[in-house]
Amino acid sequence: MIIILKENADKEKTALLKGKLRSLGFEIHESRGHSSTLLGLVGDTTILEPDDLIANEVVADVRRIQEPYKKANRKMHPEDTVVDICGKKIGGGHFQVIAGPCSIETKEQITEVAWDVKNSGAHLLRGGAFKPRTSPYSFQGLENDGLKLLLEAKKATGMPVVTEIMTPEHLLLFDEVDVVQVGARNMQNFQLLKMLGKSEKTVLLKRGLANTLDELVMSAEYIMAGGNENVILCERGIRTFETSMRNTLDISAIPMLKKMTHLPVIVDPSHAAGIRWMVEPLAKAAIAAGADGLMIEVHNDPENALCDGPQSMTPEGFDSLMKDLKEEVKFFGKTMD
Amino acid sequence: MIIILKENADKEKTALLKGKLRSLGFEIHESRGHSSTLLGLVGDTTILEPDDLIANEVVADVRRIQEPYKKANRKMHPEDTVVDICGKKIGGGHFQVIAGPCSIETKEQITEVAWDVKNSGAHLLRGGAFKPRTSPYSFQGLENDGLKLLLEAKKATGMPVVTEIMTPEHLLLFDEVDVVQVGARNMQNFQLLKMLGKSEKTVLLKRGLANTLDELVMSAEYIMAGGNENVILCERGIRTFETSMRNTLDISAIPMLKKMTHLPVIVDPSHAAGIRWMVEPLAKAAIAAGADGLMIEVHNDPENALCDGPQSMTPEGFDSLMKDLKEEVKFFGKTMD
Amino acid sequence: MIIILKENADKEKTALLKGKLRSLGFEIHESRGHSSTLLGLVGDTTILEPDDLIANEVVADVRRIQEPYKKANRKMHPEDTVVDICGKKIGGGHFQVIAGPCSIETKEQITEVAWDVKNSGAHLLRGGAFKPRTSPYSFQGLENDGLKLLLEAKKATGMPVVTEIMTPEHLLLFDEVDVVQVGARNMQNFQLLKMLGKSEKTVLLKRGLANTLDELVMSAEYIMAGGNENVILCERGIRTFETSMRNTLDISAIPMLKKMTHLPVIVDPSHAAGIRWMVEPLAKAAIAAGADGLMIEVHNDPENALCDGPQSMTPEGFDSLMKDLKEEVKFFGKTMD
Amino acid sequence: MIIILKENADKEKTALLKGKLRSLGFEIHESRGHSSTLLGLVGDTTILEPDDLIANEVVADVRRIQEPYKKANRKMHPEDTVVDICGKKIGGGHFQVIAGPCSIETKEQITEVAWDVKNSGAHLLRGGAFKPRTSPYSFQGLENDGLKLLLEAKKATGMPVVTEIMTPEHLLLFDEVDVVQVGARNMQNFQLLKMLGKSEKTVLLKRGLANTLDELVMSAEYIMAGGNENVILCERGIRTFETSMRNTLDISAIPMLKKMTHLPVIVDPSHAAGIRWMVEPLAKAAIAAGADGLMIEVHNDPENALCDGPQSMTPEGFDSLMKDLKEEVKFFGKTMD
Repeated sequence: MIIILKENADKEKTALLKGKLRSLGFEIHESRGHSSTLLGLVGDTTILEPDDLIANEVVADVRRIQEPYKKANRKMHPEDTVVDICGKKIGGGHFQVIAGPCSIETKEQITEVAWDVKNSGAHLLRGGAFKPRTSPYSFQGLENDGLKLLLEAKKATGMPVVTEIMTPEHLLLFDEVDVVQVGARNMQNFQLLKMLGKSEKTVLLKRGLANTLDELVMSAEYIMAGGNENVILCERGIRTFETSMRNTLDISAIPMLKKMTHLPVIVDPSHAAGIRWMVEPLAKAAIAAGADGLMIEVHNDPENALCDGPQSMTPEGFDSLMKDLKEEVKFFGKTMD
Repeated sequence: MIIILKENADKEKTALLKGKLRSLGFEIHESRGHSSTLLGLVGDTTILEPDDLIANEVVADVRRIQEPYKKANRKMHPEDTVVDICGKKIGGGHFQVIAGPCSIETKEQITEVAWDVKNSGAHLLRGGAFKPRTSPYSFQGLENDGLKLLLEAKKATGMPVVTEIMTPEHLLLFDEVDVVQVGARNMQNFQLLKMLGKSEKTVLLKRGLANTLDELVMSAEYIMAGGNENVILCERGIRTFETSMRNTLDISAIPMLKKMTHLPVIVDPSHAAGIRWMVEPLAKAAIAAGADGLMIEVHNDPENALCDGPQSMTPEGFDSLMKDLKEEVKFFGKTMD
Repeated sequence: MIIILKENADKEKTALLKGKLRSLGFEIHESRGHSSTLLGLVGDTTILEPDDLIANEVVADVRRIQEPYKKANRKMHPEDTVVDICGKKIGGGHFQVIAGPCSIETKEQITEVAWDVKNSGAHLLRGGAFKPRTSPYSFQGLENDGLKLLLEAKKATGMPVVTEIMTPEHLLLFDEVDVVQVGARNMQNFQLLKMLGKSEKTVLLKRGLANTLDELVMSAEYIMAGGNENVILCERGIRTFETSMRNTLDISAIPMLKKMTHLPVIVDPSHAAGIRWMVEPLAKAAIAAGADGLMIEVHNDPENALCDGPQSMTPEGFDSLMKDLKEEVKFFGKTMD
Repeated sequence: MIIILKENADKEKTALLKGKLRSLGFEIHESRGHSSTLLGLVGDTTILEPDDLIANEVVADVRRIQEPYKKANRKMHPEDTVVDICGKKIGGGHFQVIAGPCSIETKEQITEVAWDVKNSGAHLLRGGAFKPRTSPYSFQGLENDGLKLLLEAKKATGMPVVTEIMTPEHLLLFDEVDVVQVGARNMQNFQLLKMLGKSEKTVLLKRGLANTLDELVMSAEYIMAGGNENVILCERGIRTFETSMRNTLDISAIPMLKKMTHLPVIVDPSHAAGIRWMVEPLAKAAIAAGADGLMIEVHNDPENALCDGPQSMTPEGFDSLMKDLKEEVKFFGKTMD
């Protein structure tokens, strides 16, 4: 970290600042230039927030040299992390498709969709039991009953399951869930992240609607700092001024996250677009940009879905898409097994 | 709610849709135009999500006529709600300033700042015990110990206190806290909102970094739907492309929220600007735009604050600002008592 | 267009409004619902702005049924437009790569880069002579001299050339230019668009930094309304809150624009990313999402480029990328000839 | 400007970079730290773009110490600039209201509105003759005929007039116009700015929809670099994700611009809100935040206005607002004469 002092910074206050930094364990390398003096800090600067230093009257600016994340940092761990979910691998050349309905509605629905997407080649089943909805009057998911139906579908098909958690106290209900999803609205629910960091669950961490990639990686770091390194990142569209689709898929997030970190990066084209017909081009673009997987909403009766119908594919549409995706994944040198 | 059917919509599917809507208790008024047919729904449409209806193949578009919120709606409750916090009123012409440090650090710090801001005319004390920080390696607040220090400052000065909650399970620690703050990152932590809805605590609900005003009011509705109508809304800056200040204060949010809802609306100029010198003009603008109160960060030693130093005012600066604000509040016809 | 009247709208004012609309040539279909009355307008509603109607006291809301664009509208012209640039086709299955330096600097530079990119398989040469720069003190391009150098490179290599125009009066200098580029900052320079509409030049129209797709298509409509239908649209990244790359490439713009309009859509990954190493994944994603072409910055000495060095590829890097892109274009069923 | 070299930067390439910088006239102060070397440049760094330097392989990062603007810089010119428009002063404690219709429609309309706003206390008349409209099929203004009507209203009332220019070639029509407005869409129409820089017209420069304050000041610098220092800046709302009002008024822009520059800063609450009833609270907030003036749309028949009706006030509404604004301007210590 480099601290740029103001021109004519008060000497006494500068000495106080340097003393404080040394007491935090930093070695200080000072460089006096023509009009500015710079303090280079040597030590673990992840504990410092540039903003806090800027409050100091003698400081003109602060610049990080090292990233504020450690365990998620590609520099500390150059090889891709491969996350193993009941034998299904993701990352490091392994590509996975997670598919299923937005919400679990009935036993028939979830089991039927599970068989459908399995037959089309998806290896993981998604389905929401606890649903974050903008309105308190909207369907909130079947909650615990939904979870049970999902686990029945798991038993029936043998597919590992992915479902969303909304609050720490629910974790004890997630014993048999294979991948715990943290939704966009909870990306900075730090108590939830800390608790997941102490568990051994694989976590699928979705980017918040208006969170930077730095913030996303810092949230992964919350989980990893607790000891749990099974984290998958998910880009699902960000909020912009554009109104013709629900969110703007940030396709650049894929290569940038893969440069910043060694964690697998997947894409959710269904939530990004919010429109069924757009899932296909976005899914294809995600593979081409280097994604390690996709999460796609499939519903056996999208028109009557209790949530997210407009973006859900039919099993037939999904089956046809999967044929193309398998070819494309192969073209780009990854395996989907 | 008006449902606009597609031209040449399939008759059978249209009949199915109408049947489904009637089974949900809606009366349907159909209008056939030249090229489009419209279904007007009569009934409580707050249970419907336009997006879910759009999934239906025969639907071209859906338009809400009634707002999706009820208890928070100004139309249902034309007079301003006045929230009473231990005798300090906010809303309906009553203006309050909430002041104090970002984080509680020591007994001396919080008590000293409390006396300072009280002497300058603030009637409520703020201080963070549980701090949401982007990095797991940053200071996370004194947590329960901080809460105890805040309550000591309350006892010493007699000021009601405001502090942030981060997760439902912490509520039992907040017994003596007067106003429970829900921070920007938790605005859509629906489990937390539901639990607060069942409590009797006054809730200060901050707008999320990239949440629309509709979403903010819907989050208030989550609390109110549970039976708790003591909600104060807080605009604290939104995330935009502009980089010269931390966030962009959405000053229009004040008149717009006051039109949408009867709840008190306050402004946090400290977090909006992220820069100390900008707190003054933003605070003044907020009063002029019709805010019912302000939340301002004050620290006895901003340069060494453990968080948010750059935006914290000194007690002297705050005292001088309060002199101006009192005059301005009076000029705009409100009382600050 | 559907006009939704307010409940209890004044009858006399409603009659006045209807009279005014009829005098503009519209037929009105009225539907009276339970609590709202709707006026459906039949006629060419492109001359109406919904905002202007909303000003009327009796109007609650206005909803377009038909798009406000005609000549660019895919509905009016279902087949893809194929633009022919000196025999090089773009659109309708024909894919083109436009490559070259950001700015033309010297005769050697532009000619050398032209031969390089031609040998790698690019069929069109780009190079800026008039440069829009944020600062008046930055290099503004070689202007007319640059144009001459570009035309010499055209003569030497036989490649059609693309270069940016900044103001209507410069058009007379562009006689031998094959494709006139309208940059992001001039997307709503309507006088420029009108003038280009009266010319016969192929226009490459870039999306503004914060313009919606609707606005982009309306700007294309300005050109087409004047009689010039040779328009190519270009997505080049939008301005968002994300700071780790220069702009956010809106990959969804490709399928959405192709649904809205019949015009060819290309992508500029160099300006979107602003970082050399990110051009490759974005270019690949663009092809997968259905783009009809790419515009890529290539410089023979990026480190000493007078502008946009960080995002320019070397000729070697570009050559290697082109090998991949050719395979991918073929994989996705397009031709690049 | 400080250039931070990469760790282990190639020595030969570093020497080349230093040679190039010296050849551009910079003195270089080198500081070698523990792990990084910094080059401090002494000289006029406004000619350098940090991005261009970052392209160099040995450079890790670049940081400006001096702002890239000179003539507009408050540091070079600490006192407020007072712009004099036919004896009406703006800036330095002088506050002005510019009022009038969005578009000039008829002689009666513009003259009637002119007298109305003059009688209410506005000293400058606005009215659009050349209108930038998103659609080529919308009313484009009366153009030259509108300009004539505006000048007749000027003659009749004695009010100085403000009107928008859309392209350089129109400047010769603006001889008798007192203030030439550059609209949001043309904020970076650099050819237009350069031409205005060579004229002696007072320029009202509006911030672009998604332009940063740095970019706005750089556009002012384009005009001032040409020799014309009569520039007034105008904040008119920015594009964000919020949909309940047309644009988001960036109230912080007022204090920030006044810190960056010595130029007068005014606010256009009509375009920011896009809704008539919101003009009042935004106008009041702007004064409280330190604005030097306001630009407000007033129309004698807003419901039938040919453009921007929804946000135009009636003359009666404006008259009532002006009574409040006069009091407020006085309260905040400015004069409106």
